[in-house]
Formats: sequence, C-alpha cells, structure tokens
Amino acid sequence: MKSTHRVAIIGGGFAGLHCAQALANDERFSVTLIDQQNHHLFQPLLYQVATASLSAVDIARSLRAILGKARNVSVLLDTVTAIDSAQHEITCEHGTYSYDSLVIAAGARSSYFGKDEWAKYTFGLKSLEDSRQIRHQVLNALERAERCDDPEEQRRLMTVAIIGGGPTGVELAGAFSDLVRRALKTDYRRIDLNDFRIILIQSGERLLKSFAEEHSKYTLERLQELGVEVILGPRVDQIEEGYLHLNDGQEIKAETLIWAAGVAASPLTASLDCPRDRGGRIEVEPSLAVPGHPHIFAAGDLVTLTDPDGKTVPGLAPAAMQMGQHIAKVLKEDQRLQKTRYAERYQSLRPAYRFRDKGIMAIIGKNAAVAQTGKMKLKGFPAWLAWLFIHLAFLIGFRNKLAVLLSWAFSYLFDKPAARVFSISRGICKDDEPQ
Amino acid sequence: MKSTHRVAIIGGGFAGLHCAQALANDERFSVTLIDQQNHHLFQPLLYQVATASLSAVDIARSLRAILGKARNVSVLLDTVTAIDSAQHEITCEHGTYSYDSLVIAAGARSSYFGKDEWAKYTFGLKSLEDSRQIRHQVLNALERAERCDDPEEQRRLMTVAIIGGGPTGVELAGAFSDLVRRALKTDYRRIDLNDFRIILIQSGERLLKSFAEEHSKYTLERLQELGVEVILGPRVDQIEEGYLHLNDGQEIKAETLIWAAGVAASPLTASLDCPRDRGGRIEVEPSLAVPGHPHIFAAGDLVTLTDPDGKTVPGLAPAAMQMGQHIAKVLKEDQRLQKTRYAERYQSLRPAYRFRDKGIMAIIGKNAAVAQTGKMKLKGFPAWLAWLFIHLAFLIGFRNKLAVLLSWAFSYLFDKPAARVFSISRGICKDDEPQ
Repeated sequence: MKSTHRVAIIGGGFAGLHCAQALANDERFSVTLIDQQNHHLFQPLLYQVATASLSAVDIARSLRAILGKARNVSVLLDTVTAIDSAQHEITCEHGTYSYDSLVIAAGARSSYFGKDEWAKYTFGLKSLEDSRQIRHQVLNALERAERCDDPEEQRRLMTVAIIGGGPTGVELAGAFSDLVRRALKTDYRRIDLNDFRIILIQSGERLLKSFAEEHSKYTLERLQELGVEVILGPRVDQIEEGYLHLNDGQEIKAETLIWAAGVAASPLTASLDCPRDRGGRIEVEPSLAVPGHPHIFAAGDLVTLTDPDGKTVPGLAPAAMQMGQHIAKVLKEDQRLQKTRYAERYQSLRPAYRFRDKGIMAIIGKNAAVAQTGKMKLKGFPAWLAWLFIHLAFLIGFRNKLAVLLSWAFSYLFDKPAARVFSISRGICKDDEPQ
Repeated sequence: MKSTHRVAIIGGGFAGLHCAQALANDERFSVTLIDQQNHHLFQPLLYQVATASLSAVDIARSLRAILGKARNVSVLLDTVTAIDSAQHEITCEHGTYSYDSLVIAAGARSSYFGKDEWAKYTFGLKSLEDSRQIRHQVLNALERAERCDDPEEQRRLMTVAIIGGGPTGVELAGAFSDLVRRALKTDYRRIDLNDFRIILIQSGERLLKSFAEEHSKYTLERLQELGVEVILGPRVDQIEEGYLHLNDGQEIKAETLIWAAGVAASPLTASLDCPRDRGGRIEVEPSLAVPGHPHIFAAGDLVTLTDPDGKTVPGLAPAAMQMGQHIAKVLKEDQRLQKTRYAERYQSLRPAYRFRDKGIMAIIGKNAAVAQTGKMKLKGFPAWLAWLFIHLAFLIGFRNKLAVLLSWAFSYLFDKPAARVFSISRGICKDDEPQ
C-alpha cells in the first residue's frame, strides 16, 4: 500500500476536479477528493438557476458519478477545518486524513470589504442553495406584491438591486430583465411587470472593466434598452434590510439585494503559514506549490499569480482547469524523478504554470453578448452564439448538455423558462413579510 | 362587476386546476385559485424526484404559467386558514376574500392513525420539499456510511424502511432498488451497495390491495428479485428516531423511515359543518356540493363518495380531474338556470358526478409494472410501457414532457439518473449525525 502516493484534493470545483481527472487511473496515486457538497457545480451558469431559466440539477453533477470509473479516486463528503502541514494531515468535521501531497482548491466566497454584517442583508451567488434562495426570494416578492395594496410597498417588493458590475452582475441583470419583461409578462393580474426595477450598481466608471471599453459601452446600452437602471460611479457605503445607501447620497429601497461585488479566498488559506494578498489568495510559486510547503499546491480562485509570461492569472474557470491539470503534471513528474537520484534537485526545477488565455465573455440578453480573445472582439449575435456554444461545450456530462440545450431552446422560442417553481416549506424558510 | 360570479378554488392540484381550466375565459365567472405553493405538482411522479431520477422542476409547473392566458382566473399564493360559509368568506394568512361559490380541493396529507408524533421520525411524500428531503436523506446517509468505521452503524445507515405497500410504497421500493443497485453501483469505494437494505412493510396480506391478486403476487416476486425485503402481515406499533417496532415483535433499525401508509383529508374540511368520514373526508352530495352548503363544493382526495352507479370514487388523479371538471359544469348550469324562473328548483336537480374508471397502474422497476382497466389486466413490459406513456401524456406542459422523456431515456439506456445532487446549506438543514 505504501508505494502509492496519497494525494488529497480539497474542493471539487474546476481546479480540483480537473486535477483528480488528470490523476485518474494512474496507479502511482491514490487520490481523495474532499468537498462540502456531493456535486461539481458549473458556476458560470449559476445565475440562470437564480433567474429560473435552468433547474439546479442541470448544472450540477454528482462528483461520484463523474469520478466513478477512476478506481484510484475516492470522493469524501466532508468539510476541512484545519491543515497540519508539519504532520501532513488534514482535519475534517468527520475525521482526520493523512496525505503525501495536498492540493488546495477550495475556491472563493463573497467578501464584503470588511463589512461582514452586509452578508445578512444580501444574497450571494456561489452555491446551488444561493441560487435557489434568490429565485425563491424574487418569485415570492412578486407574489407578495400581487397581494399588496400599498403602492410604495409594492414598488419596494418589485425592486432588485445588484451590487457589482462584473460579469455576474451584468448577466444577472440581463437575465432578470428577461424573466420579468418576457417570461412572466402575462402571469400577474394586479401588478404590472413593466414597473419592475432592476438596479445595477458599479462603483467604477464602467461595467465589465476587464473587457474592452467599447464592450463596456455596448453592454451599458443594451442593459438600458432592457430596462435595467445602471448606476456608475458611487460606492455602496451602507446596507440594511432592504435598504442601500450610496456614498453620493442616493438611497435605494429594494426587497432583494444581491452581492456580486467582491470575492475573497476560502478562509482555509489562513491556516497555512504562507504569503497571501489582501483577498486571502495564496501567492503561489510558479509551479503552483505553496511557498515553504513543497508538498502543498494551490489552484483556482484562491491563488494569485503572475505567470512567467507576465500574465496575471484571472479567477476564471479555464484558468482553474489549467491549474488543476498543471498540478497533476507536477505530481507525476515528481513521482517519475523520485525514482531517480535527481529527486532532491528536482523540487526546484518543477515546471512553471503558464496561463493559456482563452478569452473572456459575458452574456447580456437574447442575442446580445460580448466576447474577446486575443485581438478578436465580438459583440451582439455572434458573441451570443459563441457564448452558448462554449458554455454547452464545457458543461460536464452529455445528459446535462442536452437538458440545458433543451431549456435554452424553449426559452428562446417561447420566452418561457421552465423553472418558475419554488417550494415553500412551512417552518423552515422565512417566506413572508417580516412583521 | 357584480354580474360576474366569483368562484374561489382552494388548491391547485388535479381537482382545483381542472376546475379552473374548465372555467377559463368564461366571462360569467371571475375565478381565484389559491394555493400554498406557486406550482401545480404532478404527484404520481413525486417518488422519482425522491429517488433522484427526476429533477423537481420536471414535474412541477408554475400555476401562473399554466393559467396565464385564462384572463378571468387569478392565482393567489396564500394559505387558507378558515372558511366562513355564512358570510361567504375565506380567511387566508394574508387577507380575507369573498366568494359566490367555493371549491375546496386542498387534497390530503399523511395521517398516522392518531400517532402524530410519528411524523417527526418519518418522511412523508406529498410535496416537492418532501421529495427533496428524502433524496437528501438517502444520499447523505450513504456518504455517512462511506465515512463510517462501525459496521453496525454502517448497516443502519444503509437501510431504508418504507411503511405502506400501496402504489407509493411499491414504486418507492422499486425505485430505491434501481438507484442503489444500478445507478450508484460504481460510486462508492468503502461500502458495498449490495448490502443496502430496502424494507417494505405492509400490514395487510398482500401488496397493492386495490389490484387483482395475481398482480399483488407478481409485484411481490418482482420486488424480491430486486432485493427488496417485503414484510407482509404485521403492523407498525412503535416508531422512534431510526427505529421501528412491529406488533409481531420484529425490530428494524433504519436511518431512513418513509411513511406511505395512511392519508387523511386536509384539516380545512373540519372548518365546515358537514358530514365527514374517519379520515376527515367530506361526504359530498352526488353533485359534489357539500351537504348544507349549496354554494360550496369539494373535489379530489378530500371527498368520499359512492357515485350513482355504485362505484366508490378512489383517491386518484383521474377522479380528481373529473371531479374538478364536473364542478365547473355544475357552476355553468347554475348560471344558465339562474337566468330563468327554474333557479330555485334547479338546486336539487344538479347533475350527479359519475366516476369514469380509467384503471389503475403501478410501476415496479425497469420493464416491470402492473395495470388493470375494466377486465383487462397487464403486467410486465406491456404494463410498463403503458405506465410510461400514460404518465407522460398527463404531465402538464410540453417542456416537462420532453424533459421527463429525456431523463427516462437516459436512465433506461445508461442506468444513470441525472438528479444525484443535493445541497448542503450550513446552518439550515440538519445534515449530519445527531450527537
């Protein structure tokens, strides 16, 4: 048994899963993938679950199902609470496990710039449960508005404010517009969905600041056509229940507040003695090893790195996949060389990760998206088609691809998303007006 | 405004929905459909959501979406708390509404034969939330078994006991067998899913007692082939957390206990002064009016009735649909005749509801089902095909039909249900071992 090298991977997102897949059925390794959830989640489409276009199951797949045929990979549903790098041990809620090499790929979570109390009043969008809660919140607010007789209260119930004008904020705003202006158009009798307000707040000067300026401009115009109120410039400086205050004095009353602004690394990174940036991201070595811990690697949204070509590695799915695969490659090289006399020397010669930029894209609405890769810039219908195609291609599982394709085809043709359903479980969720 | 007749319908199940649809766009009526959930649920397939074959959204459809084009129908998400038949008023959690005619179609809920404390220890299967909880419970128990080192505890975690050998119990038992013996077969590393126990307890002498005896026998044999332990005869007389006691002395330790035994009418029926049976079901008049309340009708699982042909109307979807439609017909006749001098006399001449028996069917597993209609009895593959076809045909919405067909085709071809996903939301659900 001791001859196999035990690799523990924390996190079944893009980085962790691709690392495990790259090590699958390589008999030199015995891999344990640990996640708090039983599924891999295709996060780029999470906003569509929140806005009732897709069902949660469409964009998630059981990690055990994905890795079922990888006989040297075990999946463990557990939460890592501590890492003891001296003992080569990780402690989880339900047990302690030893490793020879460790891969930390636990991702990021919402960060509130030090105002953690804001978490209470806003919805994040990181997990299936988050997306279900947003869907429930918005659909239930419409039900309450339909029952309500006070016009001011109705107005508040029919307002969604999204904080953060990056891809998540933009895609959510566009999708909410689709939902209320097209899909739900004929659903209500007493309220007029044209009165539904979608407010997108971006503290910088333009939306999608990682994109070309012309794309920011295009996105702004398209969102405004879709009836989204975009506020550029001011910064949110106060959040309370259903209430936002901006630092230029504006006040916004909205039943639903969504936080799509800042992210920070998983707090797990703090349990290692290593250099980290302000967002808690580990400043990894070029090989993706954690400085001072040659047997620990990190990948995905919780690292910060400028690669040997001078490219800053972004917090995007393609980079996470590449990093996961790169770590598998380093582990394999380590194994190969440990069998030779060069093992000692090799540690410092590990290959460096180089980010292969596949481009960036964001969807705004029906037939409208922006995409850029290298010097090529696309917008409008071609970008929209490219967006659909690439997201389908990367979704894991043929069954999921087909289900999502079917949902999209229906939404496109009939303006009727299927997932306009939420469950009210009495005594568990807060479903109704706070009194 | 007063010229329209205001109909309030409580419940958006088969009975309530079909009544609303039969009154749709008839300008003489102004209809309000009130439900606690925002969706119509196709209950006959609920067990497949519980056993991870289907996604919740596949078998539910927003009531507003279904009734969006019925301009004279409003949908209200609310819970009825009281009926005041003298004032023609219903009180809901969020308001009070007047009606001219009222249709009670609030359905049934699990009934524990007076042992209400059993509800705490068992899962029911009546709502989407119930089915999600069962799925979560069973998949999570497997995760815990995989982590567990104590063989006895592992055995308990890998046991599901289903109380009740009617169609729901039989279908659940068969579907659990499919799930653990076929779909999850290669998923786990430390536990052997052949050890998973599925126990089906039926207090009577045979399963599916509303079916022909040969069908009961066939069902028993097929379930046993699928590895289900069927206990016929004894009655459950004690239930505690993870523990069952039968009145022949047998004890069963099972992490998951599912109650598929008794149902009783919605407690709403108790708020009316009218004759009811032991299960709280209203003994309606042949026209489906509630005795003593000519403006109130009842339909679906909360009525008990023997029709003029001597047929006892069963608690099944086809009967519920027919009853909903019949009430719409009576209301229309009432309207027509109220314009004539015969109105007074007419009340007693309302047409009687006649149950049109479409037959009964239950599915046991892949290629195995039983069905009977009139004198025709089917079992095995032909019954299984008929079951699939009829359930698809009655599912509401083309989008849902296609999604379910796709899921079934995948399960059939690849033994891989898609919905093997559950969400763990920290701090909300109890996900782990009680300490």
